Amino acid sequence: MKLNIAVLPGDGIGPEVTAQAVKVLKAIAMEFNHVFTFNYALVGASAIDKHGTALPQETIDICTKADAVLFGAIGKTAFDLDPDAKIRPEQGLLGIRKALGLHTNIRPIIAYDDLLSKSSLKVRQIKDTNILIYRELTGGIYFGDRSLSEDGNTASDVCTYHRFEIERIAHQAFKAAQSRKRKLALVDKANVLESSRLWRRVVLEIAPQYPDVKVNYLYIDNAAMELIIRPRQFDVILTENMFGDILSEEASVIVGSIGLLASASLGDEHAMFEPIHGAYTKAANKGIANPIASILSAAMLLDHFGLDEEAALVREGVDKSLKLHITTPDLNNKYDNISTTKVGDFIEDFINNPDETNLN
Amino acid sequence: MKLNIAVLPGDGIGPEVTAQAVKVLKAIAMEFNHVFTFNYALVGASAIDKHGTALPQETIDICTKADAVLFGAIGKTAFDLDPDAKIRPEQGLLGIRKALGLHTNIRPIIAYDDLLSKSSLKVRQIKDTNILIYRELTGGIYFGDRSLSEDGNTASDVCTYHRFEIERIAHQAFKAAQSRKRKLALVDKANVLESSRLWRRVVLEIAPQYPDVKVNYLYIDNAAMELIIRPRQFDVILTENMFGDILSEEASVIVGSIGLLASASLGDEHAMFEPIHGAYTKAANKGIANPIASILSAAMLLDHFGLDEEAALVREGVDKSLKLHITTPDLNNKYDNISTTKVGDFIEDFINNPDETNLN
Ligand SMILES: CC(C)[C@H](C(=O)O)[C@@H](O)C(=O)O
Ligand SMILES: CC(C)[C@H](C(=O)O)[C@@H](O)C(=O)O
Repeated sequence: MKLNIAVLPGDGIGPEVTAQAVKVLKAIAMEFNHVFTFNYALVGASAIDKHGTALPQETIDICTKADAVLFGAIGKTAFDLDPDAKIRPEQGLLGIRKALGLHTNIRPIIAYDDLLSKSSLKVRQIKDTNILIYRELTGGIYFGDRSLSEDGNTASDVCTYHRFEIERIAHQAFKAAQSRKRKLALVDKANVLESSRLWRRVVLEIAPQYPDVKVNYLYIDNAAMELIIRPRQFDVILTENMFGDILSEEASVIVGSIGLLASASLGDEHAMFEPIHGAYTKAANKGIANPIASILSAAMLLDHFGLDEEAALVREGVDKSLKLHITTPDLNNKYDNISTTKVGDFIEDFINNPDETNLN
Repeated sequence: MKLNIAVLPGDGIGPEVTAQAVKVLKAIAMEFNHVFTFNYALVGASAIDKHGTALPQETIDICTKADAVLFGAIGKTAFDLDPDAKIRPEQGLLGIRKALGLHTNIRPIIAYDDLLSKSSLKVRQIKDTNILIYRELTGGIYFGDRSLSEDGNTASDVCTYHRFEIERIAHQAFKAAQSRKRKLALVDKANVLESSRLWRRVVLEIAPQYPDVKVNYLYIDNAAMELIIRPRQFDVILTENMFGDILSEEASVIVGSIGLLASASLGDEHAMFEPIHGAYTKAANKGIANPIASILSAAMLLDHFGLDEEAALVREGVDKSLKLHITTPDLNNKYDNISTTKVGDFIEDFINNPDETNLN
């Protein structure tokens, strides 16, 4: 298969982890006789430095022409944000989501047996947890009107949802549930928000088309608690943009490190793959960033094109690295000194020689 | 002291747990020679049944005349919500918050030594956690304009904040931090929301007035993760309405049961005290509801009127009940059969005879 992949490494640890994902994709191309070409483009703070905008037109063009986008990370730490800045790195990420129409964000939350002890939660709480979060990604309060009054004393953000926005992701989520444990939980705040009541109505209407799927309804506050105390109750979680942002980052505590969480953002015509973690600038260029989230995002890219065997091989490599503790300091004893690159190298070697790398 | 207390038991387990808090307040009045009078009023589903509205004018009047309000719980389960209902139990709670101007909601999150093993989190994660959440309660998306288009296909909610709304709660939170560990964390989504950027600006402006307080800034998604993996980093958390709702219910996992979390809602002229948990209708009238959240809310009521010794005695009674495992099934072996009333009786007895109840 020929794939033209746009690579947007972004800021902070973005470039380091993305480099490992590219390395892994190159190994896959070699092993399976695919032709993957990689076109790099700037986004976020690095684009602002060079072009004065977080999302240059050139970057949009490269992404639009590509079969898929591999995204790194953007942004400053929350502590360093300047609320008065007119140009912000996040505009790069939000802009590309909108420009490519990436309305459906899929975030798998899987408790790996070899990492159970790394979680803040008790092992018996999390064992066998396997959740797929469907987060709506181009609507809601992220993309509604915003305003700041002239005197600077009043600020507003509007959360709007249209029926079609809810329908398209809801059908995807129901279908995913059908191929899994046939459970779907809608997370909303329908006891307060009009937009949440629309979500509720649409899901209640659609549900009968998927009679084999058991639907549950939770308020976001309650879901934030249930996710921790009874994570195994969840199969597919469907939710709006902001709630999905919160729940998926919270869910990283189940997996043991946010450095493990991958995601796919799908539109009708485009697809982007990115780790859930941010730019984590403090950790940049130290070789300590975990590349697994980016590598697993590459695996989701392979899934997307039906390259199942290829994706499975990448995941096997990841599993093996976890089993053998070839992991960065977020998951390992920091004195082991296993770097970002070393993890990438290990998985690359595994892909080249699945049998030989088996040190077990 | 003479106190006129409005009691709004509400729905589900509300009446059962509130009855225990009233019992405890009566014991305190007896022991310390106070005159507490209790005036009951309807709210939520029970008010809808009788008056066709979740917040009858009579209830507002009783609350307005009272020195303080003791609130139980309202609402249906998320599962049972009818998105088309024009009248909903939650309007009672939101309405009373607005009518009394209760803009500052304070939610303590304390990991009790005797309950560490009940948490879903590892004991070493949570030991010594003591957080005070300041949640803005009468602004934001809870009280902004809402709309549903005529064709039912588009729904909107507006999140608006005014500078003065942020300032008044921020000063309270900074003052609280000064009397604690002198740390304040603002939780927002300033990388996306205009309203969050206003929060950020106001807190950056105010912070220099409290030079002894160390301020941190976190995005809500990140905070939802940090709360679980590093809860001890937090002292006072300051946040807007919706984020406070989510974070405080999530934080119940630290404490081991949401049945333990109390809150105070303060305005310029009125004050209300209520458990964080909801009506939990499935558990109603079974004697299994934990009354501690309501009893600790009564302790916060006593705090509010400077009745420090009285509040301390209530908390001692609660501590003792936890130490001796006189607790409802959420915290105990369910075969122990310790009912809601039994827990209330134990704490009442303790207040009457602090020395004799010491079975230790
Ligand atoms: C960087 C930020 C704008 C973004 C979001 O909130 O969507 C991030 O947190 C994410 O989850 O991808
Ligand atoms: C019942 C509901 C409207 C309420 C809220 O969201 O504020 C509750 O969850 C709370 O936290 O007090």
